[in-house]
Amino acid sequence: MKFCVDTDNKNSWYIGTNNFDAEMANKMETLMFQGNGYFGIRATSEERQLNERRNMFVSGTFDEFPSEVTELPNLPDLLNMEFKIDGETLSLAKGQIKGYHKYLNLKNGELVRKFSWLINGKRVDFKYSRFISMSDKHLLVSKVEIASDQDNLNIQVRSGIDGQQSNSETQHLMEGDKRLYEDKYLQLMEETQQSHIKFVFNARHNVYIDEVLLSEKPFINMGRRQIFANYDIHLNQGQHFSMTKYASVYTSIDRDVDQKTMAEKSVSRLKQNCAFNYDEQLRKSTKVWEKDIWQKNTVKISAKDIRPQVAINFARYQLAANTPRDTRMNIGAKGITGEGYKGHTFWDTEVFMLPYYIFTMPNVAHDLLRYRYHGLAGAHKKAQFNNYRGAQFPWEAAWPDDGESAPLWGSADIVTGEPMKIWSGFIEQHVTSDVVIAIMDYINATNDQNFAQKMGYEMILDAAIFWSSRLEYNRNQDRYEINDVIGPDEYKEHVDNNAYTNYTARWCLQKAIKVYNLIKTDYPNLYEKLDTKLDLTKNYADWLVKVNKIYLPQPNADGVIPENDQYLDKKIIDVSRYQVNNQLSSIFKDYNLSQINEMQITKQADVLLLIYLFGDLFSDEVKQSNWDYYEPKTTHDSSLSLSTHSILASDLNLDDSAYKFYERACETDLGIHAGKAAQGLHMAACGGVWNMTVEGFGGVRIENGKLKIEPHLPLAWDGLEYQITWHGSALKVKINNDKLAVEVIGKGINFISFGEEYQIPANSEIEITLPVIAEV
Amino acid sequence: MKFCVDTDNKNSWYIGTNNFDAEMANKMETLMFQGNGYFGIRATSEERQLNERRNMFVSGTFDEFPSEVTELPNLPDLLNMEFKIDGETLSLAKGQIKGYHKYLNLKNGELVRKFSWLINGKRVDFKYSRFISMSDKHLLVSKVEIASDQDNLNIQVRSGIDGQQSNSETQHLMEGDKRLYEDKYLQLMEETQQSHIKFVFNARHNVYIDEVLLSEKPFINMGRRQIFANYDIHLNQGQHFSMTKYASVYTSIDRDVDQKTMAEKSVSRLKQNCAFNYDEQLRKSTKVWEKDIWQKNTVKISAKDIRPQVAINFARYQLAANTPRDTRMNIGAKGITGEGYKGHTFWDTEVFMLPYYIFTMPNVAHDLLRYRYHGLAGAHKKAQFNNYRGAQFPWEAAWPDDGESAPLWGSADIVTGEPMKIWSGFIEQHVTSDVVIAIMDYINATNDQNFAQKMGYEMILDAAIFWSSRLEYNRNQDRYEINDVIGPDEYKEHVDNNAYTNYTARWCLQKAIKVYNLIKTDYPNLYEKLDTKLDLTKNYADWLVKVNKIYLPQPNADGVIPENDQYLDKKIIDVSRYQVNNQLSSIFKDYNLSQINEMQITKQADVLLLIYLFGDLFSDEVKQSNWDYYEPKTTHDSSLSLSTHSILASDLNLDDSAYKFYERACETDLGIHAGKAAQGLHMAACGGVWNMTVEGFGGVRIENGKLKIEPHLPLAWDGLEYQITWHGSALKVKINNDKLAVEVIGKGINFISFGEEYQIPANSEIEITLPVIAEV
Repeated sequence: MKFCVDTDNKNSWYIGTNNFDAEMANKMETLMFQGNGYFGIRATSEERQLNERRNMFVSGTFDEFPSEVTELPNLPDLLNMEFKIDGETLSLAKGQIKGYHKYLNLKNGELVRKFSWLINGKRVDFKYSRFISMSDKHLLVSKVEIASDQDNLNIQVRSGIDGQQSNSETQHLMEGDKRLYEDKYLQLMEETQQSHIKFVFNARHNVYIDEVLLSEKPFINMGRRQIFANYDIHLNQGQHFSMTKYASVYTSIDRDVDQKTMAEKSVSRLKQNCAFNYDEQLRKSTKVWEKDIWQKNTVKISAKDIRPQVAINFARYQLAANTPRDTRMNIGAKGITGEGYKGHTFWDTEVFMLPYYIFTMPNVAHDLLRYRYHGLAGAHKKAQFNNYRGAQFPWEAAWPDDGESAPLWGSADIVTGEPMKIWSGFIEQHVTSDVVIAIMDYINATNDQNFAQKMGYEMILDAAIFWSSRLEYNRNQDRYEINDVIGPDEYKEHVDNNAYTNYTARWCLQKAIKVYNLIKTDYPNLYEKLDTKLDLTKNYADWLVKVNKIYLPQPNADGVIPENDQYLDKKIIDVSRYQVNNQLSSIFKDYNLSQINEMQITKQADVLLLIYLFGDLFSDEVKQSNWDYYEPKTTHDSSLSLSTHSILASDLNLDDSAYKFYERACETDLGIHAGKAAQGLHMAACGGVWNMTVEGFGGVRIENGKLKIEPHLPLAWDGLEYQITWHGSALKVKINNDKLAVEVIGKGINFISFGEEYQIPANSEIEITLPVIAEV
Repeated sequence: MKFCVDTDNKNSWYIGTNNFDAEMANKMETLMFQGNGYFGIRATSEERQLNERRNMFVSGTFDEFPSEVTELPNLPDLLNMEFKIDGETLSLAKGQIKGYHKYLNLKNGELVRKFSWLINGKRVDFKYSRFISMSDKHLLVSKVEIASDQDNLNIQVRSGIDGQQSNSETQHLMEGDKRLYEDKYLQLMEETQQSHIKFVFNARHNVYIDEVLLSEKPFINMGRRQIFANYDIHLNQGQHFSMTKYASVYTSIDRDVDQKTMAEKSVSRLKQNCAFNYDEQLRKSTKVWEKDIWQKNTVKISAKDIRPQVAINFARYQLAANTPRDTRMNIGAKGITGEGYKGHTFWDTEVFMLPYYIFTMPNVAHDLLRYRYHGLAGAHKKAQFNNYRGAQFPWEAAWPDDGESAPLWGSADIVTGEPMKIWSGFIEQHVTSDVVIAIMDYINATNDQNFAQKMGYEMILDAAIFWSSRLEYNRNQDRYEINDVIGPDEYKEHVDNNAYTNYTARWCLQKAIKVYNLIKTDYPNLYEKLDTKLDLTKNYADWLVKVNKIYLPQPNADGVIPENDQYLDKKIIDVSRYQVNNQLSSIFKDYNLSQINEMQITKQADVLLLIYLFGDLFSDEVKQSNWDYYEPKTTHDSSLSLSTHSILASDLNLDDSAYKFYERACETDLGIHAGKAAQGLHMAACGGVWNMTVEGFGGVRIENGKLKIEPHLPLAWDGLEYQITWHGSALKVKINNDKLAVEVIGKGINFISFGEEYQIPANSEIEITLPVIAEV
């Protein structure tokens, strides 16, 4: 495994770097992102850099710029501090930089940057520290320390709120009032153009010389969307300068504020926050990280190499920093770590991130699914627009009501010169199945009847209504087909009977039929309500007619399930040279999309994803045949591909492959390729790291509604410990080379392991000797 | 005189610099601005720089971002070229830069930048050249040459259209289609949000190695608002790389294109342009500069110091580059050289720039005044809004119909913390007089009866209707007053009876009365038409009642005309330390506006401007007394102040003062203060340089409708030659220490000089011996 960040063998919560590399700067901004789910900031420096991506987003604050699709507006910058030392503006491009060191503490999200600046014969030591509070979700606290052992310094600093930010120059915000309270609280108000969300930003500074608070008022200056405090300080040789900046953000969609009073109240709140110094505020925040996150999802890897532990810590840190705690919001494909994908939510959440939350923080999983329930109106809108019925979940989702939020048009075709339509929003339809898969997993893992009856069952039924309306009857074959779609393999547009889509669509109908019978029998009131709402009686009849006639592509003579009707007839080429991990979309240098469409090349797990998710439907031989057939044809040019392959390889006892894909998947963001995470993290890959670790190596799976734990510990590891919850009980699982120990905290549970079903009584532990498995 | 640019003793059309200074970079971008009146680009570098202001504007394309006032949108960048040499991105902040040299040829607007980049042990020579065409107003041609004597180079270049630009992050443009024609013509279309002006941008590249055109297609890539061509070239030691970039811009308000076909036609046009290489296109453009501009307004200064000649060349270059040739548009206070003042037109045009055009290119002056005629609807709207009648011209003007375009709110008051109202748009009313002053000057100088009868007289009458409705009757004194205004001295808000405002308002009524009588007698049809339109009969009666009762502040016992009713009672402080040329608004570091309001401090010529413009109304003693009183109280914290003082000093035979103010005025933009022109040029100061030279030292003035030429050659100069037009004849004027020679080309004219009236017959010359004047 090669990481672009340094690690520390003694501290798996550390990622850092000792040099400033302009080419890697955007990637580092992403990796050292800080957030608390409510808002987040990329790890840009306090001073401006050329080509930086200075982004701050508040979850859920979508706005639609005319002619574009809705996105999260990039907000005014609260980090900025511009220093002049003896009149010379601080810049890493000037003078000499010594001892550069930047690092992020994954345990509490504190980011530190230190260096000495050698300029005009002086040596000036800088140390910047900052964190986004987990204890007050609106708060950013930041500190800078400056000293020079040998020289007197004149320090000028300009710091404040800089609203001259945008989304790659698209501006969502209208400037409102700029105000000053009590000579030191800076305030900027703004409002989104179309969604009319109001924002309040505040900042205040405490300047200290040798720990003594400066009483002098700052000089205030203002520009377009800008308000700054300025200090001009003389520092004697050996003296120590420090400035703490407290900043906050509030919006009119926050549930904890009243928008009429938020301008004033947010200032009072900031004032209260200023009663605690940087270290005190950091301690408060660290406690919340510990209690709300780390105590709930231990994952400990025993291995010589620290990096697997860093990878899982990084993944869980980023998931925590990017998951909004508001049921009207969901996790973006890039979280709130960058402009990529505009903050939109895809199937990434349900298929790649929800396993983590379902098994560690089911309350968060609940809220993320509830977001889909809030989104039913949008899903109906989308179905109607396409002349279908029921709930067709959007390919890209933003604010729940918005419905489909995918862009319609992309770049021009380089051959024809004409703009190209983006088809995913129209015909990549499997997301509706993916939502149902996650709902079922959640209900199975938690047995949350309240959710099932209030929301889950309705969504399953509504999704089935969609799929049933979507099916196309083929009279010749007397079967139902799903034609003209995009499956998970996005290289193939306009295909017929994509295996993943057809299998999961039928599965959705099967689940709906079961739910129908269940509620009709057990919950007659609910049945009546939903029958009225969804015309269940008629739909149920429809499902029964269709469910067994849905065409499911079957394994051919070689055991290979055709990815779609057309795939196996295409030309086969050697894909190996496009499989190199650090080349992004390299195949497009040789072929355009319509050429790729004519070849047996797959972007990411498609049939293999089906096999991983529905392992019980396929024999080991079929699984192996499809692995052998598809993997060599897959470029893995999607962050969703590698983790699936690793887990499936674990299932197939392909230990080497499993670990190879695991390592490549861990490198998705942390690896050395500069371009890959420049515009934001791959949140699904973060989920994937947990999935590979706990589902793949740790062997946790839900099969037929039951918990299965069948570990496959990698050779390179001596042991693995993790914690999951099942039906409300906490399970502490310890694995080493020959044993599996499961301790239950809470009521007793059942689980299956290698064909045996085990019962663990309440608050007790079980130890199982693992079978010895030879690689196939 | 201290300039921030280098000059060349042998070439007064040269401004340049031999070092790249980040602190001065924004100013240099302004000074080396290139434009053709239709569009213009700041002199940013092809590669991006931190804190650059990468602006391109097309005149007149105003758009209103929600919550802001209308402004010229900053357009997609056509200059960009990003080079990688052996994989290393070119940046002046990396490696070593040797032989840096950047210069602008004021004669034809060609900008050249050269340097050698020492990187990774190689030395790479770069030369960039570019110009905006005067022969095809839509065209920008740009060239880069690269060579390395000692090494082979791998050159990667990305160049194209980069729409990720904005007005300090306010985005006016909606992204439209991106297209590619014939594999090489890049096109981006955009449209303004509110005014719905459509734009088409095109670019194409020709790459040469050793003068041989590369036939290879570029690799095309696209991003948000971006389309680029990419080349990857191997250059052997000693080979020469060059790339010519042809780019163009069209808009749907252009009068020379049909917006339905402009996407395709603009590409055909660019194709035609590409038939001529860089040098050929430059020659075409240079010819137009020569014929349309330089041949019409010779100004030659004989002096040891080249800088006065550079200053006048610079001023005329910038005026030409920033003056739109479209009657729906006018010159912005900062032209199209930067975001400052949003492209808005102020009284700067009429009082400080029109003398130049009236005397050298009366057709341009005509069009600029016609803009005000197009603006009558907006002027009526403004008057009505304020409960006045007639035409009240806006303080800030954008698209003619828009009416008042001044922002309503500015920064927060640093004392109260509340946002402050910007009063100029409400109560700075003298602009209506200023328009009338320019109309009268134009008619007097050109005798353009067509303009007078079609537009000029109507505007004069309509302005008088406004002023008459504006007057406030003071029963106690039986006089008409104008209270609660801002005069030219903007330090003083809400003053009563500002001398400049009252005198010019009365003068407007007097002019209107004359016009009324003239047209009633001589042009009865016109009279009838205007009487119907403006209710002249009634208004005329009203004027007669009021005109002689308008209160005109009279000189006090010391001969001082009170700037307004309150001024002379205020406290007097020592202003000298705020008069330093290179300190911007330094007084605001010590006082806020309400404190300044309580002191006898003047921002810029106010009473003195009145005396300069209406010299015949005041005795020499009164002039001198007011000079002695007001100049020491004036901070000259406006670019409109110094030139007025220089000319008035010439009039008062204060030769030292005249030259001192002349030098300071020339330094307004060209001087060493980094902040001063960072956001754009002071176009009025450019006009001022011509005014000081030709009106001040050259002694040209219109007095009582007659031409007066009374030179005051500065001691430092040996001679001055200039050309003006009067009543359609060209006058070549030569001045040396004791003689004035005037040659007429065209029909004969009359002029006054030092009390004598001279007649010059058609196509002949006259020489006058100048009187010897002792300094007072």
